[in-house]
Amino acid sequence: VEGAVLLGEAVAGGAPVEAVYVADPEALEAVTAIAPGAEVRVVRAEDLARIGSTVHPQPVVAVVRLPTHHLESLARPTLVVVAAGVADPGNLGTIVRSAEAAGADAVVTTPGTVDAWSPKVVRASAGAVFHLPVVVDADPAAIAALDLTRLAAVAHGGRDHDLVDLTGPVALVLGNEAHGLDGGHGAVAVDDVVTIRHTGRAESLNVAMAATVLLFEAARQRRRGADAAGTAPISTRR
Amino acid sequence: VEGAVLLGEAVAGGAPVEAVYVADPEALEAVTAIAPGAEVRVVRAEDLARIGSTVHPQPVVAVVRLPTHHLESLARPTLVVVAAGVADPGNLGTIVRSAEAAGADAVVTTPGTVDAWSPKVVRASAGAVFHLPVVVDADPAAIAALDLTRLAAVAHGGRDHDLVDLTGPVALVLGNEAHGLDGGHGAVAVDDVVTIRHTGRAESLNVAMAATVLLFEAARQRRRGADAAGTAPISTRR
Repeated sequence: VEGAVLLGEAVAGGAPVEAVYVADPEALEAVTAIAPGAEVRVVRAEDLARIGSTVHPQPVVAVVRLPTHHLESLARPTLVVVAAGVADPGNLGTIVRSAEAAGADAVVTTPGTVDAWSPKVVRASAGAVFHLPVVVDADPAAIAALDLTRLAAVAHGGRDHDLVDLTGPVALVLGNEAHGLDGGHGAVAVDDVVTIRHTGRAESLNVAMAATVLLFEAARQRRRGADAAGTAPISTRR
Repeated sequence: VEGAVLLGEAVAGGAPVEAVYVADPEALEAVTAIAPGAEVRVVRAEDLARIGSTVHPQPVVAVVRLPTHHLESLARPTLVVVAAGVADPGNLGTIVRSAEAAGADAVVTTPGTVDAWSPKVVRASAGAVFHLPVVVDADPAAIAALDLTRLAAVAHGGRDHDLVDLTGPVALVLGNEAHGLDGGHGAVAVDDVVTIRHTGRAESLNVAMAATVLLFEAARQRRRGADAAGTAPISTRR
């Protein structure tokens, strides 16, 4: 975890801090206030720069124990995002951030998806990875066994996303940036496909934006009741 | 413009290409196919790296004449995004991209907003800056003179975004990441304020995500008709 802000989010989310490294002795007090009880070591700035992944390294780098979540520990989820082959860490981070903001129960990744714990994902999530369960490398068969209607987001040909009833227990399944769900990643079986109608060029809507739109449409429908799904709601519940 | 893909978007959007620089003579043919008629020069890789702004420089850097748009040249716009103080180039780029995808008529920036033509914005927009009018450094008074209901997105206290009728001519006004619309940037007068209800931490929804959600809610309502604004539509038309 790089930077004092993300370290604070890790602590707020309950992730155990194993060690903190700072380059500036004057940062000791501030870091101790953020992560009370953590072991803080002062190291040379060039060593910190070598550890850090950012171009302009943050003056604080921390080692945090990964929260571990499993599908079985999700208690009756009603809104889950499945990232099945998402490759770009910025996209996965944004998806996790939107999932938290929209009130989703969890984000689940399949094998072949970018590592949710890579520094770039953690950073792009603005710390959201510490605030909702992220289940990594989940077995697609186990995802299928959850009592959720699995809706895949596809660029073309799916049902209009706002005409689909998203108030029941649903998993929103998002595929690879280039290959969608056909890239051999994950192979999550889905119940139906949805498309966000958009104008402009074919590639004008990326996977993180699509996830954000779908998540907040689900949140909107849940606030307004099942009849808020467009003018002709279609039940997707099993 | 850095990279063959963005160069292609600039050409597709009609922006005149003044010069193209490549490091690899073998790229000449490919670049000429993308930008027919443009002057292409082969330069040393280290010089190209010095010109480029990315950490891993693209093998193609092009000089493109900026499209110039003015408020007066917008023909009866019905959906406009006003970026009034947005500071992060990635956020502004995403906002432009979402605006294009949602079918907005234009993006307008006020003085104090990050330069829409900085390489990072162009890149984050995935070339969308070349596909819809971007009006830069617009006078807030001139924005107020447009026949648009100006709705500011605020983190708290506004009307639920999906209960506001977005089918009329509206401008969605987005402020600075840290200071909202109170940072002295732009000072765009607004008619009303809207808030996207979200869970999680206070800062879990950033300005680019908020813009995306608002733009696609506007697109949704426009597809479904004015009665698609929640269960109790409130007219914001003047």
